[in-house]
Amino acid sequence: MAEVGIIGAGSWGTALSLLLYKNGNQVTVWSALENEIQMLKEEREQKDKLPGVKLPEDMIFTTNLEEAIKGKDVLVLAVPSPFTRSTSAKMKPYVKDGQIIVNVAKGIEETTLMTLSEIIEEEIPQANVAVLSGPSHAEEVGRGLPTTIVAGSKDKATAEYLQNLFMSEVFRVYTSSDVLGIELGAALKNVVALAAGIADGLGYGDNTKAALITRGIAEIARLGIVMGGRIETFYGLTGIGDLIVTCASMHSRNRRAGILIGKGATMEEAMAEVKMVVEGVYSAKAGYALSKKYQVSMPIIEQVNKVLFEGASAADAVKELMLRDKKVENIDLRNLYQNSAEISW
Amino acid sequence: MAEVGIIGAGSWGTALSLLLYKNGNQVTVWSALENEIQMLKEEREQKDKLPGVKLPEDMIFTTNLEEAIKGKDVLVLAVPSPFTRSTSAKMKPYVKDGQIIVNVAKGIEETTLMTLSEIIEEEIPQANVAVLSGPSHAEEVGRGLPTTIVAGSKDKATAEYLQNLFMSEVFRVYTSSDVLGIELGAALKNVVALAAGIADGLGYGDNTKAALITRGIAEIARLGIVMGGRIETFYGLTGIGDLIVTCASMHSRNRRAGILIGKGATMEEAMAEVKMVVEGVYSAKAGYALSKKYQVSMPIIEQVNKVLFEGASAADAVKELMLRDKKVENIDLRNLYQNSAEISW
Repeated sequence: MAEVGIIGAGSWGTALSLLLYKNGNQVTVWSALENEIQMLKEEREQKDKLPGVKLPEDMIFTTNLEEAIKGKDVLVLAVPSPFTRSTSAKMKPYVKDGQIIVNVAKGIEETTLMTLSEIIEEEIPQANVAVLSGPSHAEEVGRGLPTTIVAGSKDKATAEYLQNLFMSEVFRVYTSSDVLGIELGAALKNVVALAAGIADGLGYGDNTKAALITRGIAEIARLGIVMGGRIETFYGLTGIGDLIVTCASMHSRNRRAGILIGKGATMEEAMAEVKMVVEGVYSAKAGYALSKKYQVSMPIIEQVNKVLFEGASAADAVKELMLRDKKVENIDLRNLYQNSAEISW
Repeated sequence: MAEVGIIGAGSWGTALSLLLYKNGNQVTVWSALENEIQMLKEEREQKDKLPGVKLPEDMIFTTNLEEAIKGKDVLVLAVPSPFTRSTSAKMKPYVKDGQIIVNVAKGIEETTLMTLSEIIEEEIPQANVAVLSGPSHAEEVGRGLPTTIVAGSKDKATAEYLQNLFMSEVFRVYTSSDVLGIELGAALKNVVALAAGIADGLGYGDNTKAALITRGIAEIARLGIVMGGRIETFYGLTGIGDLIVTCASMHSRNRRAGILIGKGATMEEAMAEVKMVVEGVYSAKAGYALSKKYQVSMPIIEQVNKVLFEGASAADAVKELMLRDKKVENIDLRNLYQNSAEISW
């Protein structure tokens, strides 16, 4: 049994709270929002963000950050990516040396192009930062549907500790040392999900979507390997796996925003209608900046940027992708692979 | 302009006929069935298998195999896989030396474990056999929706000739030298599509399906590389791309049969209800035989075989997959990659 603090009481934080509780751990959930904590205490349900999933009576809910952190074996950081830096800064005074913090959000900071674990490490240098990522809609984990995921840490013992902590009959956890590859794939797949949504909105079919997904992960892999990630990560659960689940599902805000844009809405109209943070819109900018910084060709991310920020027509963007130079499929993967980072444990 | 003979007037043969016609080629379509050719001549539409797609007045339809073959620059072999060998044998007397034959069907012969191009080469040794494969539902190609595909040939000039022949504004063709990798991925992905359908039928969600797809292509890649295919092929359009389109779509007979089995039907009941050849049922046996022959672990294909042929419960099979030994994700991919075949052109 471990004592776990969950920082953030959104849909994913709540689903993981219940999973860890069912695995026999003592769970304390923190939110900055007084009314959210009040609801969780009284209703024993996250009615807004994970409705229908009942939470146990002896799960602790608090707005006191120190209470959620002190004496915990593991902290799960589950705040949306725009709040990762500010929340980390607030956590710092209470975090002990070597404290395991598992980040479960996805994103790249637009101004610094840093991944979320890099941000946490910068803000809380005494922490041992790991990540948990994979094809895992919170709604389905909350309902106990079979799910696979990857625990990533540069330290093997930490990854294996997290594997044991989270693993259950319906939640299969793999380990990986490639934290950077996991985080890049997780953030950039949202841009491809936007593109897939745009294709759906244009009335295109499964053939087009499969092409965008397959070529999309190929360009993410090209970039990610140059940056130091490993090819198998981009073709694993946290890369292609998460991309598939995002592109297939109406749970995905990125896909839903893309569908609206494909039907003719502007980016602003789509964001307003979806009413939540559309991560892919920010990641599109970050992805494009990274592709220029590392001089990697990323035609799908480039076209998404043109549609989102330069008023290009979505139909023209797809035509542009279809009619590029005639190519050999993936001839450069072998060279890429040789550049891919060594497995570190 | 080329003269093209299409051998087989099903949905895929018909969709490709129209595509090649629109690209400016002269097209002759053959079927063994007198009433099918009569319908195509009179209605200018494949009413049974590709309804709603009109065919031009000057497309030639014939039951005369010699007429469909003689003097053609390219033959497209589009008969279902169980008829590949017998049709090839009938074609042989009319096929000139070096004749390009592009096979567009998918499958592995259960008795010999041969791929379809190997069968054609055995039956028509004078032919230059190539393949065309990728995420391409005939219904969508017939409607002109954007589609990507791979032309595979051991001979680079042949692959490039086919790329030019098929490529259009809505049909993007890549080339590849890895014919074996293309054919193995195309045949075995149907087994994973069956598994994904079973998960759908059990009421599982997108998380489970994404896990099956991602781990499914990983085990196909493990086998395929040992057999001489290239890793990038399994992670390209003809592997993961085609698998995605198959698992996402209700067009797929394999997925539909899987859903019925997940809901409790036997294999025989599912096949009867779907009313067409469910390729994945045959490929499941072939895949399992190959995994034993080459001593490669293929847990998903093994569980599908248990459900199809040994009466195992589908829910137990999923639980079995979730609770295997705790694993590192894809640690063996680097070794696999080093064993992957060299790019031959």
